[in-house]
Amino acid sequence: MSFEIKEKDLLGRIGKLKTRTATVETPLLFPVINPSSQPISSRRLKETFGCQALITNSYIIKKRFKQTPIEQGLHKFLDYDGAIMTDSGAYQILVYGEVEVTQKEIVAYQEGIGSDIATILDIPTGWKVTLEEAEVTVAETLRRAKAFFDLKIRDDILWVGPIQGGRHLDLVAQSAVEMSKLPFQIHALGSPTEVMENYRYDVLADMILTAKRGIPFERPLHLFGAGHPSMFALAVSLGCDLFDSAAYALYAREGRYMTENGTWRLDQMDYFPCSCPQCVSETPEGLQRKPAKEREIFLAEHNLYVCLAELRRIKQAIRDGRLWEHTEMRLHAHPALLSALKRVRSHEDFLEKFSPTVKSSGFFYFDAVGLARPEIVHYRKRLTERYMPPTEAKVLLLVPQTRNKPFHKAPEMKKIRQLMRMLGGELSDQVHVCVYAAPFGVVPLELDEVYPLSQHEVAMPIDIETIRYVAEQTAEFIKRGSYQGIVLLNDKKLWNTTVKDATQDACRMCALAFDFVEANTDGTKEMLLNIEQALRRQLGAK
Amino acid sequence: MSFEIKEKDLLGRIGKLKTRTATVETPLLFPVINPSSQPISSRRLKETFGCQALITNSYIIKKRFKQTPIEQGLHKFLDYDGAIMTDSGAYQILVYGEVEVTQKEIVAYQEGIGSDIATILDIPTGWKVTLEEAEVTVAETLRRAKAFFDLKIRDDILWVGPIQGGRHLDLVAQSAVEMSKLPFQIHALGSPTEVMENYRYDVLADMILTAKRGIPFERPLHLFGAGHPSMFALAVSLGCDLFDSAAYALYAREGRYMTENGTWRLDQMDYFPCSCPQCVSETPEGLQRKPAKEREIFLAEHNLYVCLAELRRIKQAIRDGRLWEHTEMRLHAHPALLSALKRVRSHEDFLEKFSPTVKSSGFFYFDAVGLARPEIVHYRKRLTERYMPPTEAKVLLLVPQTRNKPFHKAPEMKKIRQLMRMLGGELSDQVHVCVYAAPFGVVPLELDEVYPLSQHEVAMPIDIETIRYVAEQTAEFIKRGSYQGIVLLNDKKLWNTTVKDATQDACRMCALAFDFVEANTDGTKEMLLNIEQALRRQLGAK
Repeated sequence: MSFEIKEKDLLGRIGKLKTRTATVETPLLFPVINPSSQPISSRRLKETFGCQALITNSYIIKKRFKQTPIEQGLHKFLDYDGAIMTDSGAYQILVYGEVEVTQKEIVAYQEGIGSDIATILDIPTGWKVTLEEAEVTVAETLRRAKAFFDLKIRDDILWVGPIQGGRHLDLVAQSAVEMSKLPFQIHALGSPTEVMENYRYDVLADMILTAKRGIPFERPLHLFGAGHPSMFALAVSLGCDLFDSAAYALYAREGRYMTENGTWRLDQMDYFPCSCPQCVSETPEGLQRKPAKEREIFLAEHNLYVCLAELRRIKQAIRDGRLWEHTEMRLHAHPALLSALKRVRSHEDFLEKFSPTVKSSGFFYFDAVGLARPEIVHYRKRLTERYMPPTEAKVLLLVPQTRNKPFHKAPEMKKIRQLMRMLGGELSDQVHVCVYAAPFGVVPLELDEVYPLSQHEVAMPIDIETIRYVAEQTAEFIKRGSYQGIVLLNDKKLWNTTVKDATQDACRMCALAFDFVEANTDGTKEMLLNIEQALRRQLGAK
Repeated sequence: MSFEIKEKDLLGRIGKLKTRTATVETPLLFPVINPSSQPISSRRLKETFGCQALITNSYIIKKRFKQTPIEQGLHKFLDYDGAIMTDSGAYQILVYGEVEVTQKEIVAYQEGIGSDIATILDIPTGWKVTLEEAEVTVAETLRRAKAFFDLKIRDDILWVGPIQGGRHLDLVAQSAVEMSKLPFQIHALGSPTEVMENYRYDVLADMILTAKRGIPFERPLHLFGAGHPSMFALAVSLGCDLFDSAAYALYAREGRYMTENGTWRLDQMDYFPCSCPQCVSETPEGLQRKPAKEREIFLAEHNLYVCLAELRRIKQAIRDGRLWEHTEMRLHAHPALLSALKRVRSHEDFLEKFSPTVKSSGFFYFDAVGLARPEIVHYRKRLTERYMPPTEAKVLLLVPQTRNKPFHKAPEMKKIRQLMRMLGGELSDQVHVCVYAAPFGVVPLELDEVYPLSQHEVAMPIDIETIRYVAEQTAEFIKRGSYQGIVLLNDKKLWNTTVKDATQDACRMCALAFDFVEANTDGTKEMLLNIEQALRRQLGAK
């Protein structure tokens, strides 16, 4: 295998990809090099920026430089000794409708120049196309993919099998499944550029996740044309490993300044919100007075610094098991980006299946967007499928979450233990104490040190959608159980009556006894007495 | 006036503060200098990092260096020609209970060395203190503040009047009002350090906002001991102008690596998620092998680069009118930080009063946390206090928001206009078309190009809390109006029945006619027909 996965989080991973001439670490950005005009030389890309790989367009190189790159070899031709990927001209098909090259020619050319990673001549689907038009691109791409294996001669190049279908997800699924049957080493998701230009990151998320479901987990996925650092975290979280960016240079030419949160136009800036070597030595005003070429180089270097730092940030987040946190934060750069994260809820089982759910550190929960997190989905599944309350438990005592964790060590729980002592051993054995807590639902007190039930922080006050989730989970827990009755301590200030109402409804549906007591910090004694009475009543004791 | 406000957003501002020896731009960070041991020299702070100001502790300097700083003058003594602020030893009172200096001595000393900005010897309240203990600190600070004006001799130093009270907000309010009666040029909020150490940023937000309400808007506010870049955006948004940071150096000594989103320990890092001149030239592994002193300097420089970049980022956000967006994004670094933003809702009128509500660019709305935004509060107030529907309007036609904006130019509205033509001029004049839209509530179609009703982006699908807000606002709009009846086009997919139910309830309460039609993209013709029939019925026409 040319790809080895070292670390995982969500669907993201840190991997080693072995190519013909170099071994590179993913997630990886391939800066696009145009040999006729490039603001940063390929040598500087490697030596100063540490770029392990770059990408260039074999179709354009073939048209312009013909045999020279074949004679010199691509690495010498570009003065670069890292991994070089080549695209095939498919993007030009999307833009211009056709190209002056056959697949046979461009496959042979990429073999001739000695690319490390090369691409077949697929047919991009594009954005505003009908289902029928999209079907044609998927079918033709697949036909070419199959034909390709009779054309190729060399065995030391990694070949990319692009997945098409655009926003037609059924086609994406079909394309992914069919392409993954062929022995490509890498897959790519085609034509996301227009999706991103239209800010439809929600559609992009569906496209990526649909493609990921179809291809083997251990094959890397390239996302064509995704070069803005604000969406790297999203793409990596959903399982993209490779990116290419012409944007760092194109934006620079247009006077645009990238950040991991968005883009400024240089002429709108008063401050450089960045500490890269370029930005700490200049002001926007000073840069504006420089010649155009110098401005372009400055911005290209800054843009690239930002892209590379963001990828290191993402890799560190994967190592820390905190890729969700990082992604959720980044996607607050634009509502359209956050909309993409909201789409993940409908793919939560897929994420949970492949993502680690036990981590070395706790997690941060902000609002219901986080309900799609693998840790939460995993807990819900485990509790539903494997958990059994203690056999002697007859009454469920539900108490609200405490500020301190683990719950059973919190000061509020001392009172509950005191209450249990007042009940006496025989009765208290029949009471099962559980906490209702955001974002999990019901947490049996005997489990509350299991990861992540104590290892998380929640933004307070809890949002209504999360409260509703906790209420639903509580109702489900009651319906699954075999308690005779429920006593609920309600904390109106935090939970209003949402959990109480759901519990009451569940009890009615299952014909269970139900009592509730309002939490009251002023009259603790009375509160405990009321709980005790309710428990005794439900247990048929005096 | 020594402080001039140049730009504003939320309660944050870009200002010019004129001191005895230098004019500096706020929001401003004063790096703390300890003349006995500092990882970055004060000269390098200015020349390489561009620091316009620094802070040092006059109490410690007095103890250690006695007369020398007086003889040399503080600027020469520290080899620094920017603005120098001095603290008084109050922090040492908080930590050690007392100091070996009187206020008279330390005031004279600060005058003697020639500080630009100097601090009286106040009594910090601290965190876990009772109301009675807190009262003593507030009263004694005030007594000293009053006494101070008889002690001071020089008139060219800016003096800081600290506000105490800790988490006891009534005391903070009282302290702010009393201190602001005295002719200090700058105020400071005392003892936030322990609040932050306990991650109670929600309490800190209340403290800052309470202090701000008491002091004149045009006096700058310093937040003592707030040196982590993850909370600068919060503090600036709430009206803090000045910060000091010993943290950049203290963290470095402990091997801690700051980012604008949190802190890592160097030994837990595999990647540097930063593009500062230090981080692009080294790896965590390489740095770990360096001598301790070199590591410390590296980290101190990195930490400072991050702090300064974040302040530039904040200033650019103020210039762009996007400080809310920046702050909301930053506060997704930790749930305790986001909790602070949630507190703003209970101060929304205060924010709205001082913040610009018309901007040159649109705004981003993510979820109900954003309901406290001045733009939204402002619209609600204007609509409630000043808006009158057209006098001939008898029936209100409520239609759901469209993806494209302004609403009246969206394709869906073509159909509504077509409907109006079907009704004919006389009847259609009696129909008032309004959109219900997140996050505003009701938007009369004739206003929909007024800022920011078309200049915003909302994360889809809309969160339930925002939907509820829209429903409430819709009900209020109906209750205030004098329509005879309401026809609602319901978009179940996005709004469920929340707006419909609220509208129906409002109609029942006001005894108005109510009809609703379900939006149906498949059967547009039927849908329009149903609306037309409802309108005709309500208008008493056939």
